[in-house]
Amino acid sequence: MNELTWSKGEKAAARWAFDKAYRNECAAFMKEVKAMARELREPEDLWKLQDSLGGRLKEISEKYDYRYSVLIFVFARLLREGWLAEGDLDGLGKDKIERIRNILGAIV
Amino acid sequence: MNELTWSKGEKAAARWAFDKAYRNECAAFMKEVKAMARELREPEDLWKLQDSLGGRLKEISEKYDYRYSVLIFVFARLLREGWLAEGDLDGLGKDKIERIRNILGAIV
Repeated sequence: MNELTWSKGEKAAARWAFDKAYRNECAAFMKEVKAMARELREPEDLWKLQDSLGGRLKEISEKYDYRYSVLIFVFARLLREGWLAEGDLDGLGKDKIERIRNILGAIV
Repeated sequence: MNELTWSKGEKAAARWAFDKAYRNECAAFMKEVKAMARELREPEDLWKLQDSLGGRLKEISEKYDYRYSVLIFVFARLLREGWLAEGDLDGLGKDKIERIRNILGAIV
């Protein structure tokens, strides 16, 4: 994937989409955490909450990797998981959209 | 402290007080966590919650050490922090109560 070149406009569009997905996913997870916290009853629930929080935040940290060398794969994953809609990537060139579609095709 | 001996009755009383303090402290912390969760707004708040949760749970794990060799110190700390009242330790012998008072005197 290293041979893809990103124009200034594409970089801005990519950053926008990346941040949008990140905020979407974090907002959804915040809702889950609020619900888990409301359900806290027993001491051991605190440790369960810590495990859930730690596991998902680690996953989020690893997923949101903004290096141009992996960004196509990141966007494919975010589309597949529903954190982005295809229209969110309108600012990217056709070469990149096609690559993303190919990756999604290979996954599905 | 190793030379203290614990009767069966004292062991039961110690376990009861220890568990009571643990439940008290966890219940108070659960209230804090529920309040922190209600205040979640931005993605970074999730990481702050993780840090708070991890720090306090580590502290709790280390504090609640039920070895008879350290229990007198644990009870002194729990009294000082308000997770136990002195009456909660009524089932312990005078030798132990005195030791706890001495430790508290040395701390204050």
